[in-house]
Amino acid sequence: MTDNDTRHRPLTLLGLGDMGTALARTWLAAGHPLTVWNRTPAKAEALAAEGAAVAGSAAAAVCANTLIVLCLLDDASIATVLDGVDLTGKDLVNLTTGTPAEGRARAAWAEERGARFVDAGIMATPAMIGVPEAGGYVFYSGSRALFDTHRTTLEVPAGARYVGTDPGHAALHDVALLSAMYGLFAGISHAYALIEGEDIAPKDLAPLLSEWLGAMGFFVGNAAERLTSRDFTSGVVSNLAMQVAGSGTLLRTAAGQGVSAELIEPYLNLMRERLDADPAAHAGEDTVGAITLLRRGSGR
Amino acid sequence: MTDNDTRHRPLTLLGLGDMGTALARTWLAAGHPLTVWNRTPAKAEALAAEGAAVAGSAAAAVCANTLIVLCLLDDASIATVLDGVDLTGKDLVNLTTGTPAEGRARAAWAEERGARFVDAGIMATPAMIGVPEAGGYVFYSGSRALFDTHRTTLEVPAGARYVGTDPGHAALHDVALLSAMYGLFAGISHAYALIEGEDIAPKDLAPLLSEWLGAMGFFVGNAAERLTSRDFTSGVVSNLAMQVAGSGTLLRTAAGQGVSAELIEPYLNLMRERLDADPAAHAGEDTVGAITLLRRGSGR
Repeated sequence: MTDNDTRHRPLTLLGLGDMGTALARTWLAAGHPLTVWNRTPAKAEALAAEGAAVAGSAAAAVCANTLIVLCLLDDASIATVLDGVDLTGKDLVNLTTGTPAEGRARAAWAEERGARFVDAGIMATPAMIGVPEAGGYVFYSGSRALFDTHRTTLEVPAGARYVGTDPGHAALHDVALLSAMYGLFAGISHAYALIEGEDIAPKDLAPLLSEWLGAMGFFVGNAAERLTSRDFTSGVVSNLAMQVAGSGTLLRTAAGQGVSAELIEPYLNLMRERLDADPAAHAGEDTVGAITLLRRGSGR
Repeated sequence: MTDNDTRHRPLTLLGLGDMGTALARTWLAAGHPLTVWNRTPAKAEALAAEGAAVAGSAAAAVCANTLIVLCLLDDASIATVLDGVDLTGKDLVNLTTGTPAEGRARAAWAEERGARFVDAGIMATPAMIGVPEAGGYVFYSGSRALFDTHRTTLEVPAGARYVGTDPGHAALHDVALLSAMYGLFAGISHAYALIEGEDIAPKDLAPLLSEWLGAMGFFVGNAAERLTSRDFTSGVVSNLAMQVAGSGTLLRTAAGQGVSAELIEPYLNLMRERLDADPAAHAGEDTVGAITLLRRGSGR
């Protein structure tokens, strides 16, 4: 087996937490020669029985292969683990969770050391790794050449989506999707809190919620179009003035049900702030216009 | 045409705002004899040309038919408009926007006056009325007998979903779904704010967001099951401790992008509060457990 055999390219994996271990297992199961290293050796030893070569140090693990996958605790761990290790000619794939800024800084750091680099954002839990039908995938950004060279290998544990040469963009896509998810979770949580103690079974509300939220997913495309055209007023289905007027019913209902409105009130406030800034200009707008207020740093 | 002809039962509609006018047009188009009244007569006159009988007073409008549909500005308007009007034997269908408490109080008020009553929550915009393929519908709750009697008529402008005898439950379903929608909108808004100014087109993020949020919609069913069983720990895909640990990356990314985290921070805080209350008990929980904290009135 050689580096030219793209189906079974050898690689090194640093970091064997839950995610790293899941990744290691899929590469081993697919027949990839795999060298592993972990700060505490016990987790590596378990993988040795499955065919992994266990390196005695991070430096030895890096030396063993060209493709080096990092799945460490955090960005700071990378500098610690690879301190003084020769990275010349290496291809670093960083699956360690981090921010876009960390991805960019780490890319520069890798380049200074003579390595190619892609950062990654994993849209999967460890249980979804190696299970294609689970739909998990990984965002990659940074060196296009590295990604193209190793794409087949990277696609073994989960789908691979390359989102550009900016090494911060994989993490940015990851965080954008996770942040949107928490908004969704927040809305659903508030809805269920409202019916607690009522003679309404959560399982009876569930299909109504799913259907409604599916229909309201139109907001994703609606927002993309309006943020691109900057046209917040044409073809508005439900305008800002109407939605602000209706928000009182939502807040009074929450209060009446004894439910804190903390999860939905910030968005209602944002809509009102947009309207109040210039009612004549904004009353007929789509609520997408309120997004433009969010670029104001860490809060009001 | 008589009251026995359920296809074309005559009815009265009080209130001709955008929604009332849309409703009136669909009943007229379907061949229902319709009597209308509006506080300012101009809107009623426009409908007269389409075949509506315009009553000179709310009392006259109520007198004309058994089925009385209310689509007024707010709950207080109902008492004002129907002050002193004989409601004995009438079937009141209240499409006026309100809270569950207002629906319950209005049902008692109607019963005292000898009328049957259902409250309603409209899950549609005026443009969706009379357009079945738009998917709009109306929640109804209260008198089952009234609903069964008039169901065919009520289904003319939009689908009809009866959600129980409690006259507060139509509004509660309405508000629960709208509240969940605002959570969804908040999450999507934060995601787009994060990429503003980056070399990422909103239209390129859109399909990724739609796909991801569709997949994360599993939370609706997951929450229903756990809130019913009160089992927050079995079969957890991503536990509370992991999610709280990861929230720092979301907040640091927002800060790095110059975006206020106001729309997502309350949910992240709620997860942390649940964890901190008893880390040993809650670390392995699904985030659904955090919903149980929301029944605490109007905020912290």
